[in-house]
Amino acid sequence: MDENPTKTNQSAHLALDIGGTLIKMVYLSSDDNCSPDSQVKVSQEESNEISDGLMKCHTGKGTLHFLKFETSKIDDCLEFISSNQLCSHGDLPDKKQPSAHDRKLIKATGGGAFKFADLFMERLGITLDKVDEMDCLVAGANSLLKANNQEAFTYMNGHKEYLQIDHNDMYPYLLVNIGSGVSMIKVEGDEKFERVSGTSVGGGTFWGLGKLLTNCKSFDELLKLSHVGNNRVIDMLVGDIYGGLDYSKIGLSSTTIASSFGKAISENKELEDYKPEDMARSLLRMISNNIGQISYLNALRFGLKRIFFGGFFIRGHEFTMDTISVAVDFWSKGEAKAMFLRHEGFLGALGAYTSYQKEGSGESMSHQLVEQLSNGVQCTGENQRLLPAEIKSQGK
Amino acid sequence: MDENPTKTNQSAHLALDIGGTLIKMVYLSSDDNCSPDSQVKVSQEESNEISDGLMKCHTGKGTLHFLKFETSKIDDCLEFISSNQLCSHGDLPDKKQPSAHDRKLIKATGGGAFKFADLFMERLGITLDKVDEMDCLVAGANSLLKANNQEAFTYMNGHKEYLQIDHNDMYPYLLVNIGSGVSMIKVEGDEKFERVSGTSVGGGTFWGLGKLLTNCKSFDELLKLSHVGNNRVIDMLVGDIYGGLDYSKIGLSSTTIASSFGKAISENKELEDYKPEDMARSLLRMISNNIGQISYLNALRFGLKRIFFGGFFIRGHEFTMDTISVAVDFWSKGEAKAMFLRHEGFLGALGAYTSYQKEGSGESMSHQLVEQLSNGVQCTGENQRLLPAEIKSQGK
Repeated sequence: MDENPTKTNQSAHLALDIGGTLIKMVYLSSDDNCSPDSQVKVSQEESNEISDGLMKCHTGKGTLHFLKFETSKIDDCLEFISSNQLCSHGDLPDKKQPSAHDRKLIKATGGGAFKFADLFMERLGITLDKVDEMDCLVAGANSLLKANNQEAFTYMNGHKEYLQIDHNDMYPYLLVNIGSGVSMIKVEGDEKFERVSGTSVGGGTFWGLGKLLTNCKSFDELLKLSHVGNNRVIDMLVGDIYGGLDYSKIGLSSTTIASSFGKAISENKELEDYKPEDMARSLLRMISNNIGQISYLNALRFGLKRIFFGGFFIRGHEFTMDTISVAVDFWSKGEAKAMFLRHEGFLGALGAYTSYQKEGSGESMSHQLVEQLSNGVQCTGENQRLLPAEIKSQGK
Repeated sequence: MDENPTKTNQSAHLALDIGGTLIKMVYLSSDDNCSPDSQVKVSQEESNEISDGLMKCHTGKGTLHFLKFETSKIDDCLEFISSNQLCSHGDLPDKKQPSAHDRKLIKATGGGAFKFADLFMERLGITLDKVDEMDCLVAGANSLLKANNQEAFTYMNGHKEYLQIDHNDMYPYLLVNIGSGVSMIKVEGDEKFERVSGTSVGGGTFWGLGKLLTNCKSFDELLKLSHVGNNRVIDMLVGDIYGGLDYSKIGLSSTTIASSFGKAISENKELEDYKPEDMARSLLRMISNNIGQISYLNALRFGLKRIFFGGFFIRGHEFTMDTISVAVDFWSKGEAKAMFLRHEGFLGALGAYTSYQKEGSGESMSHQLVEQLSNGVQCTGENQRLLPAEIKSQGK
């Protein structure tokens, strides 16, 4: 499926993961102020509607940027690539400028690498060099887990704990990537994996249903809203059915959700009678819990003790992680633990980025960069807040 | 937890299953026109807002009625019991009238047996004799599966097929009861079972979310609406992400739903821009598919080859059964089949009904009745339409 033109300039400093909802971009720019031992800094800039998440990491090789765009606003992404000359090689010190007639190749993954291939060619003369989505997710996760001792962590009841992953004993594990939909991948080795399951109830469902119910204008707005809501107003709890009692015989407490959104049926209320924040919270809890449950059942099925959750749905949101963790804990009766990845949203884009290295065109730069990025971020003196929650948006 | 008063009159002709959304009632009335060899007839009467589902079955012992009421309209249920004197024994030929001072006991299951115990006592002087919900579901399913060769069937691609269940080889199986929430029970014998899983995404979620999205006034209205909708308008398909292509490497066709309600995010539309029927269908498909998937994963976990689906969510609705069947088929790669029960919605109520027999107070009448009911219904010359779809409502 991939195109292999004979004369190409691989843009080893730019990779894309074009999903159904978001475009994730990783690119490297040269940095005159950068020295090999320079500290990483995470920049926090103003938000605008183009890109509401940006992280910059200065390394010895340059500055590695992480951005996202909404897929529906792909024109902004094209404009960004064009205006920042991301497809020329001029900002990489060891590359020469390509001629106007050279083909420009960018590693890209996700369905949008197919869907928007013609658009990139027409508008920017760029050929999207397609890399398989599952390959990229796994490559991204493996690179990060190997490169950084503080990549994976558990989160429960407000407590975050980093995990020491033995690089020689990290397989097998279940990788759950929560994008618009959810993919569940059994990973047994560097390039040995299989997509074993998934669910259509994912981030797109949260945002899609949430938008219909609340009129929120963005995913992040909806997520913030859910933070202050009370799902018990709209969820039917065991206690609502049992007159305030537990159903203790089968281990269900009165506060267990018996039916998500179940209270909306029995009361004489309409949509406008419910607070948007309560609906947002109920929705987030329903989806997080469902993903946690299906993930655990798949991990159990294949005897996988570790479950790593990634994807842009999570966004370092504490309540989301907490619900997923509680679901895995509840269904596994404490046997399994949900684990999260600090670079959760960029697994696919980083995987595409490291694929330059495979072909030798990145001169092993990609892998080094991931290492430096990871170690670098670790050295910034991060406090108890989670890194992704600190990522702020970029002014155009 | 159950009360055991010393002086009681067991109303062996009435049992209730009071769930979070619906009250299911089974009761026996005497029938002067009834002889031991009388044919069963399923009456179809006018609907009203109290009870939109009634089936009457005339047997040699009398007429067995199946009704449902909305739990939120429990007053109608109380009124119905009172005005039809269902808690007196006068209509059972072999019982004498209880004195005014006798305690009246009714077998009742579901959370409402706890929640509404005081209400039944205050209003009707009735003590609800609580029977465990899981006990009742399993007893109801086992009784039906043993009593009737045409109780269980598969349904896929518009094709219905009855299953011959060997009564000596019917265990183990997974019973999935889809009420407001969903219970999944591993059944290994007559009284040997365990609730192994469940999900809060059930019938209450369909109705609750559906009501908020569409303003439908009843579950059945929402179900009918879903029948004419097109979920592709609002679900994000694999082809929507991959530019119309399959993601064939991992076996996902372009028409596979990647993200339920995922299209609602990328378009500049609000709730009122979507047709209620399209949202209803997307919702039904999301929930049915999710239940099918989680059920299969649990069946796999415990090595259960058979999965029976019951509960009032299904209501003989062909699209619902089809979606559940396709989900089980998809995730099991054809290894497992979803099976449905003709008396799907009344498993708990029938289980409560048969519990009279256990205590000897029903003089084994209950079991015989279930047998007669099942065989009788089989003898009515049912056509290709499913029985539950034929059940019409009762005029008050």
